[in-house]
Order: sequence, then structure tokens, then C-alpha cells
Amino acid sequence: MVSFDTIRSTGDAEVDVGIRIYALAARLFPICRSITGDGVRETLQILGQQIDLTQYEVPTGTPVLDWTVPQEWNIRDAYIKNPSGEKVLDLAENNLHVLGYSIPVQKTMPLGELKSHIHTLPEQPSLIPYRTSYYNEQWGFCMAHDDFAQLEDGNYEVYIDSEKRDGHLSYGEYVHKGHTDRDVLLSAHICHPSLANDNCSGLALLACLAKALRTRKTRYNYRFLFAPGTIGALTWLAGNEHKVSSIDHGLIVSCVGDGGGPNYKRSRRGNSVIDQVMEYVLSVDERHGTISEFSPYGYDERQYCSPGFNLPVGLFQRSAFGTFPEYHTSADNLDFISPEHLASSYRMIMEAIDILEMNWTPLNLFPKGEPQLGRRGLYSALGGDKSAGETAMGYLWVLNLADGNHTLLDITRRSGMSFRDIARAAQLLLANGLLADISEQPPQAGETSISGHT
Amino acid sequence: MVSFDTIRSTGDAEVDVGIRIYALAARLFPICRSITGDGVRETLQILGQQIDLTQYEVPTGTPVLDWTVPQEWNIRDAYIKNPSGEKVLDLAENNLHVLGYSIPVQKTMPLGELKSHIHTLPEQPSLIPYRTSYYNEQWGFCMAHDDFAQLEDGNYEVYIDSEKRDGHLSYGEYVHKGHTDRDVLLSAHICHPSLANDNCSGLALLACLAKALRTRKTRYNYRFLFAPGTIGALTWLAGNEHKVSSIDHGLIVSCVGDGGGPNYKRSRRGNSVIDQVMEYVLSVDERHGTISEFSPYGYDERQYCSPGFNLPVGLFQRSAFGTFPEYHTSADNLDFISPEHLASSYRMIMEAIDILEMNWTPLNLFPKGEPQLGRRGLYSALGGDKSAGETAMGYLWVLNLADGNHTLLDITRRSGMSFRDIARAAQLLLANGLLADISEQPPQAGETSISGHT
Amino acid sequence: MVSFDTIRSTGDAEVDVGIRIYALAARLFPICRSITGDGVRETLQILGQQIDLTQYEVPTGTPVLDWTVPQEWNIRDAYIKNPSGEKVLDLAENNLHVLGYSIPVQKTMPLGELKSHIHTLPEQPSLIPYRTSYYNEQWGFCMAHDDFAQLEDGNYEVYIDSEKRDGHLSYGEYVHKGHTDRDVLLSAHICHPSLANDNCSGLALLACLAKALRTRKTRYNYRFLFAPGTIGALTWLAGNEHKVSSIDHGLIVSCVGDGGGPNYKRSRRGNSVIDQVMEYVLSVDERHGTISEFSPYGYDERQYCSPGFNLPVGLFQRSAFGTFPEYHTSADNLDFISPEHLASSYRMIMEAIDILEMNWTPLNLFPKGEPQLGRRGLYSALGGDKSAGETAMGYLWVLNLADGNHTLLDITRRSGMSFRDIARAAQLLLANGLLADISEQPPQAGETSISGHT
Repeated sequence: MVSFDTIRSTGDAEVDVGIRIYALAARLFPICRSITGDGVRETLQILGQQIDLTQYEVPTGTPVLDWTVPQEWNIRDAYIKNPSGEKVLDLAENNLHVLGYSIPVQKTMPLGELKSHIHTLPEQPSLIPYRTSYYNEQWGFCMAHDDFAQLEDGNYEVYIDSEKRDGHLSYGEYVHKGHTDRDVLLSAHICHPSLANDNCSGLALLACLAKALRTRKTRYNYRFLFAPGTIGALTWLAGNEHKVSSIDHGLIVSCVGDGGGPNYKRSRRGNSVIDQVMEYVLSVDERHGTISEFSPYGYDERQYCSPGFNLPVGLFQRSAFGTFPEYHTSADNLDFISPEHLASSYRMIMEAIDILEMNWTPLNLFPKGEPQLGRRGLYSALGGDKSAGETAMGYLWVLNLADGNHTLLDITRRSGMSFRDIARAAQLLLANGLLADISEQPPQAGETSISGHT
Repeated sequence: MVSFDTIRSTGDAEVDVGIRIYALAARLFPICRSITGDGVRETLQILGQQIDLTQYEVPTGTPVLDWTVPQEWNIRDAYIKNPSGEKVLDLAENNLHVLGYSIPVQKTMPLGELKSHIHTLPEQPSLIPYRTSYYNEQWGFCMAHDDFAQLEDGNYEVYIDSEKRDGHLSYGEYVHKGHTDRDVLLSAHICHPSLANDNCSGLALLACLAKALRTRKTRYNYRFLFAPGTIGALTWLAGNEHKVSSIDHGLIVSCVGDGGGPNYKRSRRGNSVIDQVMEYVLSVDERHGTISEFSPYGYDERQYCSPGFNLPVGLFQRSAFGTFPEYHTSADNLDFISPEHLASSYRMIMEAIDILEMNWTPLNLFPKGEPQLGRRGLYSALGGDKSAGETAMGYLWVLNLADGNHTLLDITRRSGMSFRDIARAAQLLLANGLLADISEQPPQAGETSISGHT
Repeated sequence: MVSFDTIRSTGDAEVDVGIRIYALAARLFPICRSITGDGVRETLQILGQQIDLTQYEVPTGTPVLDWTVPQEWNIRDAYIKNPSGEKVLDLAENNLHVLGYSIPVQKTMPLGELKSHIHTLPEQPSLIPYRTSYYNEQWGFCMAHDDFAQLEDGNYEVYIDSEKRDGHLSYGEYVHKGHTDRDVLLSAHICHPSLANDNCSGLALLACLAKALRTRKTRYNYRFLFAPGTIGALTWLAGNEHKVSSIDHGLIVSCVGDGGGPNYKRSRRGNSVIDQVMEYVLSVDERHGTISEFSPYGYDERQYCSPGFNLPVGLFQRSAFGTFPEYHTSADNLDFISPEHLASSYRMIMEAIDILEMNWTPLNLFPKGEPQLGRRGLYSALGGDKSAGETAMGYLWVLNLADGNHTLLDITRRSGMSFRDIARAAQLLLANGLLADISEQPPQAGETSISGHT
């Protein structure tokens, strides 16, 4: 485990970013979060040390689309004492020990009665499950089945010092301003307690990514959302209906710290630009990730891709939710994620951003026959560059497809070349007056600098 | 072989229906049918014992599209006697022994001359072929090649007591009325003599299916047609041109009693709703049937799918015509078909009807975000049902795709779930006010009950 | 090697055509060609002995699209003498020995200085490479690496007696007139010196094909173009911009004499009629050729398929350029091509022409049901023909798809039958009044005779 206090630069930017994300995730891990409450606020406060986060507090009872903001829940203490008065379960040891949104209880009861309130995983007997009951009032505990099996008959004292009361739902938003009025949405759910991959990893990665963008001039606004799953996304959507038409692309980010995948689940539209971009990013990644069709189960793409919004928002993960044994158990801890995997997830998302930023629609100004590139010094522009042949092919592909109907990404996909080779060729052709940029919102000179990590 | 007289309920509805179809096919088998004549009338009379069949008689000479109703043909007796006066072939033994539509003959002739009138199958020497000559006047016999090879030289007496004269073409029609004015066409050819699979099986199956529908309220009208191949379909089309625009879906049913396939040949349109329905039905059938593209050779889909009609009518079979060795031979007898296979064919066609009946177009009335299902008790509606998870996924799929552009069948195909799970979820959502039904012709309350056999 | 003077008919038309093409290629092989100059003129003069070629001379300095016609280049002599005064390289021995468009030089220099002007193929040490430098002024030689390695130190005399001066770019054009105003473009590059496959083969094949067409009445005009690569195509396009809209189909023909492939590279449009035709032709060829997607690198399809023209022009080859070891070396000589392979390439291109000529759009005049073919004698029209079954299926396919939206080629592709069987069936149906021809430019009676070679 990497301690937050010992971060030193390794001199390798990609390794460094992985370590920084890991350290931030490690700070978030111990906090007891739920869909509301002080754990969320503490998390936002830590994230706010990275970026100038705006924190929103939405009162209990506020109608949000078909839902209502629930009462706020906080918990101070919880334990079970066996007939000998020994604590056999203690919230202080693991936040997963208490059913999320448990109502308070203080009782002594026989084991037989207690059992119906205890959740275990008989097939993973050493792990504590993660369980919640947001909208059905009940109390409960979660524990390892091995420990559960050793409980002896007798009367147990159960104690949950929690509170549900009118309060607020908290979420944080950070917007990196670009020079157009079009948005990219990047969202991570903040509601899970001590689960490292799901989703301390996503929260920390997005915070570090937002921080890195601060020094970069971009075309798009990047809207970072740190909100509780489902109710948080609904709350944001309810309060921002007028803004959703500005969202051109979006990614839900979760479970990005383990070594699986990568996995990308398409938006409901199925072939939106973000879908094409992520398909490209995964295709050139050495791990050969998996692209899945949209399905209406998962994270907050469920809300963003509901038919009334139908936003071009996909889901990026390493191991897909529900597919790894550590999922929603105490094994999803800080040993399950690593700086290396966080760094490669970060790199893939940044690559997608680079492509979104650098993608434009060229129009060949000399469309009849090939223009004479040699006369313009374009071949010599390549110098002794090893990729000279690729750039030359890039010229030909860009010129041939620059009919106003193809973006650089389209040309990349059709040519089988790399986006960077295509983008470089297009930039040189543009600089030589052979192309016009007819994107509706073109990047301005010098603004689409490529991030340095590739 | 199952005798018609010994049908007793086995207590298993599916087994019972197979036995009933088989018994009816067995009654039809011995009849000497052709495209016209008393054999067709006798067949219609037997089918009419199941359902209230309307029998049509169309006079010889009636123009039907590019054709003309031919003279009616009947046959009373036919044989060949060898030089010793022994019958070496007798119509009484097998209806296939005479070339269909043979003109009468009574002659004595040397074997050499006779041979040119005898059809055999040298590569299947023990089988009698099935041959006809409807529009070229000739006479002929069909026999096993083994028997043919043993004929000794000498003079043979040939006798065919047949008659071609002005009369009628007969066909039967039965319409099960639904509550809309849209039609489903179900058609089986009635013109083949003693061939069990092709098509006593189809005739008997459709008659039993029509009988079963009588007690069911349906959305569609179900139009059952029992008519001679080609000329019968043409005759029906010529007399019902004003009705064809009401046909939304159709199936030609033939060769449904053997253990092969199932096979479905798409309509000329290639992706009509019946094509999608049958593709789904075959995809969930354990036998993993085969879907073929349309071709203009086959049964009466040739006529229904001619470019001037282009109806959405496909062909359902077990073994595809022409592909099984028993095809158009005396081996296509009652041993070749079985109650079990007839029952599974029946079940698949009924499943298609169920889907046609239950398919509707939902519109999500809460399209922004997911509606809160828990608040409405929709999760608890699932109770201890084992398929609760599937129904929950069904809710999500239906809500997400209920944008007015997807039918339940579309949602089924996209989700990979079963039609019944999708339909059940949609029904519960509709009942809870979350959906509207925007089908042009929605099923009315309680009318789309699912048939009990699945 | 086949001598041009010894051509005698073998009595086999296909063998004969291969021998004639080979002999013509063999006459063209020794000529020292470049993108301009007397070698091109001599080549055009020889081709002009086959067909009534029009020779065009375009002056140096003429602007052609983004380019300018360069100075004309001619060469009389070139050699290298070693320190002993012996010629170690002599243009008279191989035209490839001099870098194309070399400026003149006469100098004595040490081996060390000379080496930078000599091009070799270290990995194919016995072969002379083919190199040019049209637009960068330089001089150079090409030689086998084995010979190069044996050069001893000392002073060498280098001599290139070449001349670049204002003159002309030469190209030839031959148009076979059809009875419509629509064109098929057939083009071969004329700029390569002694390379047999690339492209003496293409020049000779097209000249023989043009000659064969002279006696044939065709629907289309066939425009044969023999022009230098790139600058020749650009020059033609610049001078004929008003004509390009008449070009319905086109093929670039190169490297058609070796035993590889066949290969067809689609036009930029990707699914133009010529793409479909060539896909069909390759699909029925026993060699099972390869179809490639369009790419903007290659021969003059680069110009014809530039976005401002986007003509339906594909590339036909046997071995694809750049993929065979003999490519652009002295091994691409007359031993590398053969009459047999030239003949089969010729046959495939002629098959494509046959299909273009015979392709028309039928409309079924009896679209409701099948028309009664027997009554019209159409089945008996088949007689004892072995392909009677295929023609009968052809009737059914043509009638079924003759809805005005399918050409015969479309019907061929959908049916899986041969184009000739479909065309034959359609012709018989047309003759019997069952079809109308609704092609915009139908073939006239007797004009679409099929070439005799298949």
C-alpha cells in the first residue's frame, strides 16, 4: 500500500500519476459514505483539495424527476455483543459491517432472532458483503460467514447508533471551462463506503484528471460530477435539464483501479462519438479491451441514457461491475487496486479527451486529383522521421477523405492508422493551406496541444 | 401408428395435441387427392369436422390472374397386367402409382412401349415416386424400380379409368375472427395424395390449431386456407385481391411431422415481423433451427411473395422440402411422421401466434431518469418468484426502450431476454401507469391471454 | 519467351489472345520509357498499330490541376567505367540502370563519392532496382548489389547523356463508340521502362482488348487511356473535366501478366456497379481472388478517386503492387509474365465488360402470382439443355425480383446463380412479353452479344 505522505516523483509522469491517484483513493477509502450524510461531505472536502469543487446541498423532500431526495442518514457507532459481552462485530473495524441506511436499534435478542438481520456470503465465507436498504426501513449487519457460523446460542446485544432525519443530499461539481459552450460530462459515484475499486478509484482518478486539465486550454467544457449513484444523478439531471443539451460526450467512471478489462459499455445511442472514441482507444490498447452494447443496468448511465435524456454517455471500467469476485465485498480494498492500473486507466481516459479535443472535420481545398505535396516541401517536412511513411500515408488518407463528411476520427477508423498520425498529417496539410477546418467548433491555434503522457 | 379411434387424453396437453394431429393426418392419408377432384372435397369434409370450414368451388375455365382454373380430374381405377394377366401395379394399393392428371387409357402394348410411361427412382429402387402432369396431357404410372426391373417381355394391359372434364377447383377457408380488421394468413396445400409429411401433416396441424383458437379472443383475424398448391393460391389471390392488404403476417405450413429442422424461410421482404417472430421462436427452440433467406422456389410463398403482392408470408417446415430422402416418394408415409414432432411443430406455430398477439408498442410516460419502481411496489410484485431478477431486468429494458420506436419483440431481441419476461414486465408497468400502449391496434384488456401450453 | 514473329493460331481463342498480348508486351518491354519523352511516343506508335490511337502532346508548363507538365526528358547513353576503363554499368544493357529523370553528368570521381549516387537492393543483391526522381534534380544509377559490392577503389568515369528541356507530355487515347453517351474508362500507365508486368502487361492487354471490341456493338463508349502515371492522369482529367460525368464505370489495369491474385481494389465509393461486377467476376473465378477496400495509395485510382472527382474506378491486378518480390526490379521481366496469365486476366476484364453490357433492369409485367410459363412454352424452350433446371430457377428469380429495383446483376448476387443463367432467363422472359426493360439506357436488340470466349 502506498501512503499518501510518501509520494515522491519517480521521474516518470505516468507512474507518478498512478501513485497520486492511488494515494488519494487511499485517503477516501476509510470514510463511511452513503447516498447522503457527513461521509459524502468529508469526501467532497478531500476532493476539493485537488480542484475548486462546488458543493451542492439539496434538501430532503426536494422532488427530483420521479423521485424525492430522501432523509439524510448518519451513523456514529454500531456493534454486536455476544452473550459474554464481547464485541463480535464492530463498525469501527469495517464500514461494511452495517447495512447502509439502517435505522437505529438497541436491543438484546436471542441469536435466532438476530440471524434474520445478518447478511453473509456463504460462498465467500471470509468476506463481508456490502448491503444497503435506502428505501425500505430496516436494520441489519453484514459479516463474514465464517464468523457468523461461530456465533453461539444465547442473547446478543445489538446496537446501531444511526440517525435518519431531514437534511440534505450532497454532491460536488467542477467545471473546467473550454472556449466553446459544448460539454463533456465525467461522472463518478460517491455513495459507496470502504470499497476501493468501486469507487474510490473513480473519484480519485477524476479528481486528478480535473487537476491536470486546469493548465490546458480546451475546446470543450469538462464537467466533473461527484454524486451519489442514482439519486445523485437524478438530482443533478432534475436541476440541470436546461444544460443537458450541451453535453456532446460523456463517461461514467468506476472500478478503474484493478487489472482487469478495460471494458467500455456503449451509450444507448450505440454509435455516438464517445462510443467511437472509446472503441478506438481500446483497440489500440495492448490489453485489447471489451466493448459491450448498452444495457439499462449498471451505474448512472441508467439515468443519463434514459429515453427522455438519451445522452451520449458510456461507462468505462477495468473489470466490469458484478464480474469480479471482490465486487461489493470487503475484498474490494486497497490491495485490490494499484497505482499501475490506475495510471493506465487515467491514460486511456486522457487519450479519449485528447481525441475529442483534436478531432475536427477537414475539407480538401484541392479536391481534384492529388495536390503536389513535394512542391510544398511536405515530404521533406518529414525529415529523417521514422514514421515518414506513415505521415505520407496520412496525407493521402486525409486528402482523400476530406470531403466534409469525415472527421479525423472517421479517417482514422477507415484508414486503420493511428489517430495521432492522421492528426499530425492533417495539421501539416492545414498549415500548408491544403485543408480548411469546417468543424462547427474548431479548435483554436495552439489549443489542442496533446497531453504529454503518450 | 396411432389409430384415430383410440385417442385418449394422456393428461399432457402437448402430447395430446400431437396425438390428435397425427390421428387426423392418418385419416387424410389414404385419400387420392390432386389439384382438383373428389379427393380434395373428401379432405375438406374431414377437416370440416374440426372447424366450420367454408368450401369454395371455382368453375373450370375461371381466369385466375395469369392462369385458368383447369378441368377437374377424377380417377376410379388403374392397373397394369402382365402377359400372364396378373396385376403388377394397382392404384388400389397406392395412390402414387398413377401419374397425377393422367388421361384415361386402355390398351395392350409390348413392354418396350410401356416403359416410356413408367416413372421409377433407380437410386431409391424400393420406393414409388410421386409424379404429376397437370398441364401436359399424358398418361403414366409410377412404381418401385425393383418391381419395374422384374417386368418380363411380352404384352401388357394398361388401364387408367380417369376423367378430365369441366368441373370445379375446390378449396376451404376458415376465419377465426379477432377484434381488429388485420389478418394473419395460415395456409397448407391440399393437393398431394398419400404423402404424410407433405402435406397431411400441415393440413391436420392447421385444422387442430384453428380448432384450438376458437375459444380464444384474439387481436388478429386468423385466416386458414386449405387449397391446392399454386393454382389454389392463385385462385384465392385472384378472388381476394381486396383483402390482401389486410394481411399483416402469414405462414405457409408444410412437412411439419418429421423430426428434422425446424426450418423457416423468410418472406421476400426479408425482415418482416413474422420473419422476426419465427427467428425468435427458432432461436429459443432447443433444436436450434435454420433460418433461410427467401427464394422464389418452394410452396405457395411463391405466389404470396410474388412482387405484385409481396406479402409478409414465410414458410415453416421441419425438414425442408427436397432435402429428405422420403420427399415425394412412397416413404413419406405415416411411419415418417410422429405425434411428438407434430406436437412440437404445433407448439412453435402457437408460440409465434402468442407473440403476434402479445406484441405491442410501449411508451414510457416517465422517460427522464428511471421511475422509482420500489415506491410503486413493483419489485415486491415479484414476490418469491424465481424469475424476479429477470422481471426486474425486464422493467429496465422496457422502460429504457419504450421510446415509441420499439415493440416488445424489438425489446426482446435487443435485450436477449425471453419474450414472456419482457411481456410480463411491460404488462406490470402498464398496469402501474408507467407506460402507455401506442400500438395502432392495441390488445384489449384480458384478450391477450397466453395459450396454456408453454 | 514467345517471339512476336512466330504467332500462329493455336486454334484456341483464349490461348491465342494470351499469345498475342504477350507478344505485344514483349515488343514494348525493351523501350526506355519515362513520364515524358520519345520512349512514350515509340510505345504509343506500337500500340497504334493495333488500334486507331489518338496521340496527345501537352506542352511543358501547362498547368494541370495543382500540377504543371514538367520538362520532357530523354536519354541517349549512360555508363560507368571503372579505373581500368571498363564499363561496369551500361544503359544499353538495361534501362533500369539509370535513375529516371537523371540530369546529365560527365565526371571522374573516386568510388566513395560515386557510391552516394548508386541505388541497390542489398536484400535482393542480384536485382537492379527501378528508381526515379521526377521533381528533385539529381543524377544516379541503379545496379545489382552483388556488382556494386565488387567495385574496387579508384576513380570512376560516370556519364549520363540525358536532356531535360521544354517539350511535351505524350499520351494516347482510343474510344470505342457505343450507342449511348455513357462511358467506361480503361486505363494503363505507360511511364515505366523495362518492367514487364508493371506495366507492359496492362498496356498490351488493353490494346488487344480495344482491338477485339472494334467488331462489337456496345451500349457504352469504351475510353482507353495510355498515359504516364499520376501526371498523365492529372493531365487527362484537367483537359476532360467536362467528360468525367459521363464515366459510369472504370478500371485501372496493371500487373496483369503474372500468376498471382487476381486482386481487385474497390473504388472510393466502395459499392459502385464496377465494384459489384468485379466482386462477382472474382467470385466465380477458380482462383478465388481478393477484394480490397479502397485506399488512396496505388496507381491512377488515386487521381480518379480523389474527392473532387470520386469516379467509380477500381484497380484490377493479378499480384498486387508492392507485394511480389519482382516488383520494381529487373526481375519483372518477360520471364515473369506468361501468355496463360495474360489470357486469364483478359478473360476476366472481358467478362466484366460483358456484364456491364448485358446488365439491365427488368420489370415484371405479370407481377401478381407467377405467370404460367408452361403455357408459353418457356419450359420446353429449355429442351434437353443440361442447364434447364438453372434456367427454370432463373425464370423464377428474375420474375420475383423484377420489381424495377433490381438489375440483372442484383438478381445474380441475390440468387447465387451465374450472371449468364440469369441473363439468359431474362432474355427469354423479355422475348415472351413477360418483362419490360426499364433501364434508362437499354441495350438494343442484338447488340449485347456475349463475347465468344466463355
